[in-house]
Amino acid sequence: MALVQTTGPSARAVSEVVRLDGHVLDSLVLVKVLDTIVDAGASYKILELDVGTTNRDESHVRIEVSCPDEAALGALLERVQVHGVNREGQEEAHLVPVDQDGVLPDDFYSTTNLPTWVRLSGHWVEVGQPEMDCAVVVDLDGTTARTLPMHRARRGDRVVVGMHGVRVAPPRRSAGPGEFAFMTSEVSSEKPKGLTVERVAATLRRARLHDVGGQSRGILAVCGPAVVHTGAAPALAALVREGWVQALFAGNGFATHDIEAAVLGTSLGVPLSGAEPSEHGHANHLRVINTVRRFGSIANAVDAGWLRRGVLYECVRAGVPFVLGGSVRDDGPLPDVISDTAAAADAMREHLGGIGVALMLASTLHAIATGNLLPATVETFCVDINQAVVTKLADRGSHQALGIVTDVGLFVGDLADLLCGPDWRAQVTRGP
Amino acid sequence: MALVQTTGPSARAVSEVVRLDGHVLDSLVLVKVLDTIVDAGASYKILELDVGTTNRDESHVRIEVSCPDEAALGALLERVQVHGVNREGQEEAHLVPVDQDGVLPDDFYSTTNLPTWVRLSGHWVEVGQPEMDCAVVVDLDGTTARTLPMHRARRGDRVVVGMHGVRVAPPRRSAGPGEFAFMTSEVSSEKPKGLTVERVAATLRRARLHDVGGQSRGILAVCGPAVVHTGAAPALAALVREGWVQALFAGNGFATHDIEAAVLGTSLGVPLSGAEPSEHGHANHLRVINTVRRFGSIANAVDAGWLRRGVLYECVRAGVPFVLGGSVRDDGPLPDVISDTAAAADAMREHLGGIGVALMLASTLHAIATGNLLPATVETFCVDINQAVVTKLADRGSHQALGIVTDVGLFVGDLADLLCGPDWRAQVTRGP
Amino acid sequence: MALVQTTGPSARAVSEVVRLDGHVLDSLVLVKVLDTIVDAGASYKILELDVGTTNRDESHVRIEVSCPDEAALGALLERVQVHGVNREGQEEAHLVPVDQDGVLPDDFYSTTNLPTWVRLSGHWVEVGQPEMDCAVVVDLDGTTARTLPMHRARRGDRVVVGMHGVRVAPPRRSAGPGEFAFMTSEVSSEKPKGLTVERVAATLRRARLHDVGGQSRGILAVCGPAVVHTGAAPALAALVREGWVQALFAGNGFATHDIEAAVLGTSLGVPLSGAEPSEHGHANHLRVINTVRRFGSIANAVDAGWLRRGVLYECVRAGVPFVLGGSVRDDGPLPDVISDTAAAADAMREHLGGIGVALMLASTLHAIATGNLLPATVETFCVDINQAVVTKLADRGSHQALGIVTDVGLFVGDLADLLCGPDWRAQVTRGP
Amino acid sequence: MALVQTTGPSARAVSEVVRLDGHVLDSLVLVKVLDTIVDAGASYKILELDVGTTNRDESHVRIEVSCPDEAALGALLERVQVHGVNREGQEEAHLVPVDQDGVLPDDFYSTTNLPTWVRLSGHWVEVGQPEMDCAVVVDLDGTTARTLPMHRARRGDRVVVGMHGVRVAPPRRSAGPGEFAFMTSEVSSEKPKGLTVERVAATLRRARLHDVGGQSRGILAVCGPAVVHTGAAPALAALVREGWVQALFAGNGFATHDIEAAVLGTSLGVPLSGAEPSEHGHANHLRVINTVRRFGSIANAVDAGWLRRGVLYECVRAGVPFVLGGSVRDDGPLPDVISDTAAAADAMREHLGGIGVALMLASTLHAIATGNLLPATVETFCVDINQAVVTKLADRGSHQALGIVTDVGLFVGDLADLLCGPDWRAQVTRGP
Repeated sequence: MALVQTTGPSARAVSEVVRLDGHVLDSLVLVKVLDTIVDAGASYKILELDVGTTNRDESHVRIEVSCPDEAALGALLERVQVHGVNREGQEEAHLVPVDQDGVLPDDFYSTTNLPTWVRLSGHWVEVGQPEMDCAVVVDLDGTTARTLPMHRARRGDRVVVGMHGVRVAPPRRSAGPGEFAFMTSEVSSEKPKGLTVERVAATLRRARLHDVGGQSRGILAVCGPAVVHTGAAPALAALVREGWVQALFAGNGFATHDIEAAVLGTSLGVPLSGAEPSEHGHANHLRVINTVRRFGSIANAVDAGWLRRGVLYECVRAGVPFVLGGSVRDDGPLPDVISDTAAAADAMREHLGGIGVALMLASTLHAIATGNLLPATVETFCVDINQAVVTKLADRGSHQALGIVTDVGLFVGDLADLLCGPDWRAQVTRGP
Repeated sequence: MALVQTTGPSARAVSEVVRLDGHVLDSLVLVKVLDTIVDAGASYKILELDVGTTNRDESHVRIEVSCPDEAALGALLERVQVHGVNREGQEEAHLVPVDQDGVLPDDFYSTTNLPTWVRLSGHWVEVGQPEMDCAVVVDLDGTTARTLPMHRARRGDRVVVGMHGVRVAPPRRSAGPGEFAFMTSEVSSEKPKGLTVERVAATLRRARLHDVGGQSRGILAVCGPAVVHTGAAPALAALVREGWVQALFAGNGFATHDIEAAVLGTSLGVPLSGAEPSEHGHANHLRVINTVRRFGSIANAVDAGWLRRGVLYECVRAGVPFVLGGSVRDDGPLPDVISDTAAAADAMREHLGGIGVALMLASTLHAIATGNLLPATVETFCVDINQAVVTKLADRGSHQALGIVTDVGLFVGDLADLLCGPDWRAQVTRGP
Repeated sequence: MALVQTTGPSARAVSEVVRLDGHVLDSLVLVKVLDTIVDAGASYKILELDVGTTNRDESHVRIEVSCPDEAALGALLERVQVHGVNREGQEEAHLVPVDQDGVLPDDFYSTTNLPTWVRLSGHWVEVGQPEMDCAVVVDLDGTTARTLPMHRARRGDRVVVGMHGVRVAPPRRSAGPGEFAFMTSEVSSEKPKGLTVERVAATLRRARLHDVGGQSRGILAVCGPAVVHTGAAPALAALVREGWVQALFAGNGFATHDIEAAVLGTSLGVPLSGAEPSEHGHANHLRVINTVRRFGSIANAVDAGWLRRGVLYECVRAGVPFVLGGSVRDDGPLPDVISDTAAAADAMREHLGGIGVALMLASTLHAIATGNLLPATVETFCVDINQAVVTKLADRGSHQALGIVTDVGLFVGDLADLLCGPDWRAQVTRGP
Repeated sequence: MALVQTTGPSARAVSEVVRLDGHVLDSLVLVKVLDTIVDAGASYKILELDVGTTNRDESHVRIEVSCPDEAALGALLERVQVHGVNREGQEEAHLVPVDQDGVLPDDFYSTTNLPTWVRLSGHWVEVGQPEMDCAVVVDLDGTTARTLPMHRARRGDRVVVGMHGVRVAPPRRSAGPGEFAFMTSEVSSEKPKGLTVERVAATLRRARLHDVGGQSRGILAVCGPAVVHTGAAPALAALVREGWVQALFAGNGFATHDIEAAVLGTSLGVPLSGAEPSEHGHANHLRVINTVRRFGSIANAVDAGWLRRGVLYECVRAGVPFVLGGSVRDDGPLPDVISDTAAAADAMREHLGGIGVALMLASTLHAIATGNLLPATVETFCVDINQAVVTKLADRGSHQALGIVTDVGLFVGDLADLLCGPDWRAQVTRGP
């Protein structure tokens, strides 16, 4: 997505006019091209844009692309050519002979999988055997061309270098009735993760410190039980303690396991620290719920000194409001749980004023519920290890949400390192 | 995606001019709007399109939308309003009182999660507490408005109906540096599956029977071992037998388990039919490989009458070429496996001429390998139960591929039902 | 699991005594061995079982295995040897020379990855370079042995055949503190799927027709919205209509989309049939809910002739009770939804008497809720395309549940084919 | 799994004799019970074990359980009762009245979902409405009992406390032909992750430093491309540099992207650091491969000073051997890649001597290939974000492998923090 703002090109900028033809609007091609230009730190001017008037018309676009230097411009034109962007002009293709078997000239033209033509002796010659990530080799008499996989290059083969004299056809639209979805990879686990943590941290810092108009925007955390099961509760507790959460939504499960972990050191009976085996069992969570019911509320349990750590403890101490929405799978439930689901949603609505960022942490039910309530202006991050869950949130309408497929157990810890410093880890090892 | 061709609007068509402002190009908004119009069977004319010249400029678009009748037009305008599309004009909002607690007027305006204004007494009034899927209620003196969840509607509340006098702001772009991916749900398991099978069948029929120029285009099947493990081999064998496959790419695993299933009735030692327990074990596949090595090739094993069913048997009988590419995890391998991977890719290249459709069936390695070789003009379907695998194929560059998240074990069976008739199932029950 | 009942061995049965030593009880080895024997249709007698008294003691077991014939016995002993089971006795290993490069003798001994010894000239000689799925080759002077991958076999190599004179060490326990989970593959998408459908159908037939004591046991269906999104609702409706469901639990989402699909032909606004594009939009489900609220109940909407197909329509017609439990993400909700979650669980409890089989269909929330309420004696199947969801159900305590990782959209259709005949499909194509 | 070694019970230990009846061996019940005892830090003596001789016979077991104190013993007996373990003896159930609506007595008996009996006035009375996580309430005349959900407890209700006088039936075996897999949750993403990292670190330390016999065991890393894409390459490079890797297996993809990241700062063209946008495109990896081909080998590229960071750079510098196995999807490939897959597997075999621990990092193809070659005595960890991949490795036979479902991008970083100290992170920010 074209989300990076560019500054203008520097004085020594170089430019080139490119063109793009075909169904470039409804096949997203133009959008991807402009994104690629901006992402590369370059800038563009749309010199001409003719989209026709109906979806049967082809579009024609001429764009002037500006880059800081020739190398950057060449690299950028290479990137956008996979979308069918061609240089204007009728220059001949440049040919260089291979000087070592299996090795191509350094600046070899790297093919896309689009139909391709090269300009030889004043004619556009179609490249045979279209295949991506190959070179283009021209035969001895210079009248035919075909793709050449790197390992097949032989000394003396004449190979196209650079992008002059090369043209590709725009990606075609699917021929059929076309109800299928194109595969998109925007939500993927294969993204640089340390970087992702840093960027979420930066967003939270921006929300708190120097927002538009000098006013900070609140941060909402929506939490599933896996936050506790994966060991992320102490990190989240540190974030609450240090002012990085202004409201928290969850269910009976998250709250119960947070308290169970705080009081007994287990989550669903599984010990969360390796120090020593737990002596408690599967009924841990029931006994915890029963005890809090006796206190009458979580806040009472904190005031009585019985609950002395954990996420909800920190919420009570810091005055951070939390809403625990009931669900039909609840044991107990805890006295703070709002069993009537319409009333629970109404309670959530009351805490959305001033919220600017929402963090959905390993939650499906409460994340969807919250997504239903949030205005589109709230920046939303959905963190889950399961790509299908992240996709499901988008299916339910929260299109402004940004998906991060990662392990919440490690993610929240690394986030707390960045926002709170590493000292919170020392407090964890003290144990319950 | 705007893949449905529309016919022109009928004589009784009704039209309306709408407008859209903001960063509608690089945030995909315009594309989605045009897609939605075409998907709904309507047509459009772009009356005005000003995209500015750089990515900092806002765009302004005016579109005339035509539908067969008023009801269709109203429904369509409702759908596109989630993308920030507004009617032109300055009509007053229409208000109707609630006549029953908890029930809204039939034609109530259903909110998006965008900032929204309603026209009251000649002024645009912002709607408070923006939240999607609500109604808009106007206070008694007609000067303020806010969202109203359905269950909170009370008799006498004055609620906006229809879309007149309602405006929304376009979806904003992310405020930050914006390196995050937007969540998209185009590859999801939650699609109508019977319909998907029918559409793949239609594509294959089109490829074979009445293609452009009267020439049929070949169908390529790329198969992973799970095709056999999930019990889909007999259905795929039927498709080969009846001419629905013109080339097949796979590895040692698929081929071994196909032969193991054909000869012994097991796959990795697991019985594929419930008739009786297998008397063979984990070394089944090794003994099968060893025996075929003794024959010298799969074709020899067919000629000798030892291999008498299965996918590769049908390939040999029908003269369908197959390429088995080696991998470092191979046991044996089978004598037909090309252990040198560069040679295997070269062999695959030789069978791509004339291929028009590719079916990737529960394969990762060979699907990516094939995707690397295919021109963008080949229609490609990737079928896998694992959404992450389907996404990974897109990450590797096969952007023209269409992802289907489903169970290949049931999918291929239902596909064979449609293309070959149900008789192939009867042949399966005869067993090995 | 040892779930197949065996009949006694036939008259011509052959037997062999095997032994197994080590930590065979707490490493599950003995259990797997006995399961493998029973799964193979063989029978066993435990002649000796010494498990020691504490977990530090090794166990020693002697088992007599009986099979119908020698071939079956040999195959079975091969299968159990991966678990460390050895024949008693001190026979010499049998050696056969390789007669063709790259091809092993037919009956070659196939290695496990356990430490292995072969008996040569009266001594147990350790096999070098332990690796699974290889042969064992003995050097010329017959004093050393090592593994031999198939492709490296050379004419004249002397290779061990059969299992005489071969011993393996039992699988060791992990040396470390050992809190890691062993990988298990019992819930996997790679199972024969046609077979799985047949077995669920058989279980449902058994529940209905000829149960213990002649009394049928009720079938409970627990449904998530993806049942509708994937197009499975008409098949489920047929199952209800023909008496295969005695109670149904779901939430507002399933019920709303079922009614939306029945009335408008869409699910969350997505058309479920390809016949023609929908003219309705994202607010479809809200208008459906609003209309049913006006009727006062789903049953009223059926009685009024407004709702005329779908799962809930068939429930109303057939008098099948349904409980719709509220959740915090609900729009509306439908008037039949029990918003108070404790009350919803209580309502579910009232319909569990007589239930013998539960089908969890693409549901997480309601499946976990139901699993919490069901006695362990109810046979439970969890069907979901997402393996992580199926695992999560087990994490929440429903250990008696059986997981099926498949596409519910195709699974329920194939199940209805088996239980209702194919005619239900014809009724679907009539459309709404 | 019973992997924790216990020391003997202390002097003040308390004991109790429990019994277990039914198909406890082949339904894994006994194994789970013994594991639970040992995991709790308790010890056991098997006083009696009668497993019958065939799989139709029920087993009978008597076990003496010893714990440090009464509280621990009570908690343990509660945990094992879900598996059908009962105290011996015929004591009456203890009853305590509820003193507050909705709150149970502190020590209330928490139900399993098994058929249950309580001892009242000398008789075993079956508990009605079996449901887990409830209390048991006894009616006024003390002759009937039923489950009681917590929220329904009313002042004066007489509820069973403690475990005296309570019996449960053992879990039954599935009634049917039983070919379905039980759901098991041993590979799950919902485990404490900080703890998991610490334990892998401890295993690696043990392997290197104080192994059996004073000899260190080598560590093998098997790497997929996602190690680079998720940003884990610098952490892995640090581990290599500091001696935590003795051999590395991977493919062309991992190696290419590692070098691409080291030289250009991108992975498949995606920038890995946020400092500035990349000026390179999709052909980056091809140009990198081409350049290394010109050098002739990766080691030559290091010697020439062209490659100056990254995982393979550190391998070359530290003399850590690496094997790059070819695959049919390879571009180029790099000159070090062994394109013949049989030769590649042979090369891998040569580096397995002395390997004691294997780390499979986000790799499917090479992890399965390696698993095929490793003896069962090598401790193996499979790290992948995708649970299905981890399961697939188990399906392919590497039963000794331990699965960790997490994000390799964060996991390897946290592992390097523990083993190398945090300084490696500073080196990363210097950039390429």
